[in-house]
Amino acid sequence: MEKPVNQTIVIFGASGDLTYRKLIPALYALYNQQMLPDRFGVIGIGRTVMTNEVFREKMADGIRKFSESIHLEEHQIAEFLGMLSYHSMNITDPEEYVRLKTLLENSSESTDKNYLFYLSLVPSVFGLIAKNLAKVGLNDTADGLKRLIIEKPFGYDLESGLALNKDLHDAFSEDQLYRIDHYLGKETIQNLLVMRFSNGMFEPLWNRNYIHHIEITSAESIGVEDRGGYYESSGALRDMLQNHLLQMVGFTAMEPPTSMDADAIRNETFKVLQSLRPIREEDVIHQVVRGQYTASHVRGQSIPGYREEDHIDPDSRTETFVAMKFYIDNWRWGGVPFYIRTGKRLPTRVTEIVAHFKPAPQVLFKDCQPDTGCNKLIIRIQPDEGILIKFGMKQPGAGFNVKNVNMDFHYSELSDVHLPSAYERLLYDAMMGDSTLYTRADAVEAAWRFVAPIQKVWASNPDLIVYGYPAGTWGPEHVDDLIEDYTGGWRYPCKNLSDDGLYCEL
Amino acid sequence: MEKPVNQTIVIFGASGDLTYRKLIPALYALYNQQMLPDRFGVIGIGRTVMTNEVFREKMADGIRKFSESIHLEEHQIAEFLGMLSYHSMNITDPEEYVRLKTLLENSSESTDKNYLFYLSLVPSVFGLIAKNLAKVGLNDTADGLKRLIIEKPFGYDLESGLALNKDLHDAFSEDQLYRIDHYLGKETIQNLLVMRFSNGMFEPLWNRNYIHHIEITSAESIGVEDRGGYYESSGALRDMLQNHLLQMVGFTAMEPPTSMDADAIRNETFKVLQSLRPIREEDVIHQVVRGQYTASHVRGQSIPGYREEDHIDPDSRTETFVAMKFYIDNWRWGGVPFYIRTGKRLPTRVTEIVAHFKPAPQVLFKDCQPDTGCNKLIIRIQPDEGILIKFGMKQPGAGFNVKNVNMDFHYSELSDVHLPSAYERLLYDAMMGDSTLYTRADAVEAAWRFVAPIQKVWASNPDLIVYGYPAGTWGPEHVDDLIEDYTGGWRYPCKNLSDDGLYCEL
Repeated sequence: MEKPVNQTIVIFGASGDLTYRKLIPALYALYNQQMLPDRFGVIGIGRTVMTNEVFREKMADGIRKFSESIHLEEHQIAEFLGMLSYHSMNITDPEEYVRLKTLLENSSESTDKNYLFYLSLVPSVFGLIAKNLAKVGLNDTADGLKRLIIEKPFGYDLESGLALNKDLHDAFSEDQLYRIDHYLGKETIQNLLVMRFSNGMFEPLWNRNYIHHIEITSAESIGVEDRGGYYESSGALRDMLQNHLLQMVGFTAMEPPTSMDADAIRNETFKVLQSLRPIREEDVIHQVVRGQYTASHVRGQSIPGYREEDHIDPDSRTETFVAMKFYIDNWRWGGVPFYIRTGKRLPTRVTEIVAHFKPAPQVLFKDCQPDTGCNKLIIRIQPDEGILIKFGMKQPGAGFNVKNVNMDFHYSELSDVHLPSAYERLLYDAMMGDSTLYTRADAVEAAWRFVAPIQKVWASNPDLIVYGYPAGTWGPEHVDDLIEDYTGGWRYPCKNLSDDGLYCEL
Repeated sequence: MEKPVNQTIVIFGASGDLTYRKLIPALYALYNQQMLPDRFGVIGIGRTVMTNEVFREKMADGIRKFSESIHLEEHQIAEFLGMLSYHSMNITDPEEYVRLKTLLENSSESTDKNYLFYLSLVPSVFGLIAKNLAKVGLNDTADGLKRLIIEKPFGYDLESGLALNKDLHDAFSEDQLYRIDHYLGKETIQNLLVMRFSNGMFEPLWNRNYIHHIEITSAESIGVEDRGGYYESSGALRDMLQNHLLQMVGFTAMEPPTSMDADAIRNETFKVLQSLRPIREEDVIHQVVRGQYTASHVRGQSIPGYREEDHIDPDSRTETFVAMKFYIDNWRWGGVPFYIRTGKRLPTRVTEIVAHFKPAPQVLFKDCQPDTGCNKLIIRIQPDEGILIKFGMKQPGAGFNVKNVNMDFHYSELSDVHLPSAYERLLYDAMMGDSTLYTRADAVEAAWRFVAPIQKVWASNPDLIVYGYPAGTWGPEHVDDLIEDYTGGWRYPCKNLSDDGLYCEL
């Protein structure tokens, strides 16, 4: 594996949970696979005063707890920890950035002046930090690479999304910016590109001539847990649909790119987002259903409703579930409905893309009715990444009776080696300067523009219903109203009222 | 399962091996599944004089030895044996057919005068028996069903094939005739129809736009065994290619039938055989390769060559292997080469149809070269009936590297119940009057017409080479010369020089 050029990663918000649980374990995994630069360092930045030793001890703890499928050797951990240091600063004080710059330039590993800044903080400070870094020249690519990674949310509506991009662009150029959507780091999303564009047998089917509709589901079985404060001001539309789900739509529906370069791919996903048919305000109630989980019993266990969770308004109208129907107005997808849904406290944790094929044009076999459809191609993103094809085969014995059967591919069969985590993949890509799996400004803005009418209608009609749904079910029953002309309905990969969190194929 | 109408099966050649090993065990299996008529009888006919008791005892022995996946209960066998009787006659004497008719009419089970004649004899007597049956009115459908099943070979060339059909048609109408090709009784051949025509996702790909070439293999690992006498005058072209392989081509390449009726399906397979591009005599040496196995050692065991086998001419030029390339001149398949091969003493026993898809039109991923092709759809007929799709997926980890993976469906997964044998299926169909899986006269003639130039060139050029190939290999090396524009070559489901008879996917 190619190694990135020598560089230093500067993590703002290094005392936070993400650094401890995800970023440092991901960097350790890269270290373990010799995928870090020859000269490499991590500087953790936080408001808390902490010695390097205390920081390293905490990070070692994170590595031991959250490393997956990596063999841990204490002497290797010790060597890795030697690359970490900690620096306390007040991020609002421009003066302190001068000291940061000096610190960076004096670190032996950063003689190349290649810096990757990772903002693991609340979005409200993204613009401020970018501006302060720029003020001291830490955006200047003349003497080395300068890259900035930010985490979602990238704004909370179209206006704030545009404002954030403007602030970032005042300090950094777009090609220095890496907007993380960790869903895009999932192997299977990338696999979707390979499956579609390296095979001669899938792409010819991937259009309005053969596909009846596309369904994308991202279900969580957990509730808001300890993120109530954040979630209450976000909701499923902002937290999941505007970013993850629409990005998945982009990869599912895109045209073949001219090459596998980051910008060639991002040009195509952007074109999909540009082609989403805008939803008229009067259609929001017909095309979008929102819900909120209510208290229920799942396998004898009592589950609180959303309004009973910590830090949640007892009269909250924040949606924990959203489903919608829309169209992509282009030659490939004209007239093909896309159904997408996401929610918390659903029966299982599963993310999947389902292509429902049109039935055969002539019904030669009685068991295969045109309204239920025989063929589905299911791309599972998580868990148990893989591909499932459902098709009709002959029932053994006399006559020609058809039975639906499964043909399954589990991604885990492909490799018994370590499967990189999303952060591992994304951090490596950012160090390599590969932004394929990062979201570009225009895509973020197009996605905000698409959901804007929904946000507007919800905000301006406080009496518009938020349907309740019992925790452990597949959301409000009204989601079935979205699907009009297809009696097959939504796909339920798992029955209602199960909380085992396992993916169960029915 | 629907039961056939009351009828009597009359087996000519009842003292032979086929009756003992296949027909009676298949009828017993139908009995076991309550798929026989309410009133049913079998009359075995042979030259040998034998009592009913001796005949029944021999048949009981066959049932016990050759029944597969059927639970045997002695009291059920006894009940079944009660339906069998034996009648000795000289089939060349027309007078004896009068007695046969009286016997049939006096049998209590045959009051409905529905008779199914099964000719398990050498083809030279087919015409004679048909004529003699007709002479006494046993072809007359006015008072009941009269059907005639015959076994291949249906002639040995175009002229004799036409003559046989004429003899049969002088006595019976085409819809009374059932020409058995036991390959067509295989579940997977039927499954091929269901797969193609009940799914919306395979048929759009099944044509010249997406398929690069089709390959059909029927390999046997055994030699001629004790059939040397028959085989020496037949050879692989007559024994396998003209019937089984061309019938498989018919089902693989056919257009969707107007319905699943026997004649609708047979009309379509016939159209395929009609569309085979005739091979010019001067092209025979370019499009056809024949071979004969030679002595070799397989896993330390010494295997005799064909010429050393019993009842084989030590200078024999009979082919035990034949491979050919041809085209189907119609809109669906224009320009798509079909490669078919069959042989004895090959490394394994396998019958499969392989659709090699064209590569993606643009090479976005370097590991997937256009000349090797990434996608194959493999329909395994035997053993381990099922479907295998080979396609490219992303190699886990950074970058977009492509790896060929398998997605597999085993037909055995579909049912843990008894899978009917080919004879079981075919006898049931004949009793039901369903001739879908039987070959029609026009198809037999079209197949003879297609192979006629090959037979002619071989017969008129006694010095034309018959390549030797060591037993346990995939035939003569010259078969690779048939494939010109595709570096992938033939598919080898199993390595050379293995005689374990297992299907091994590489």
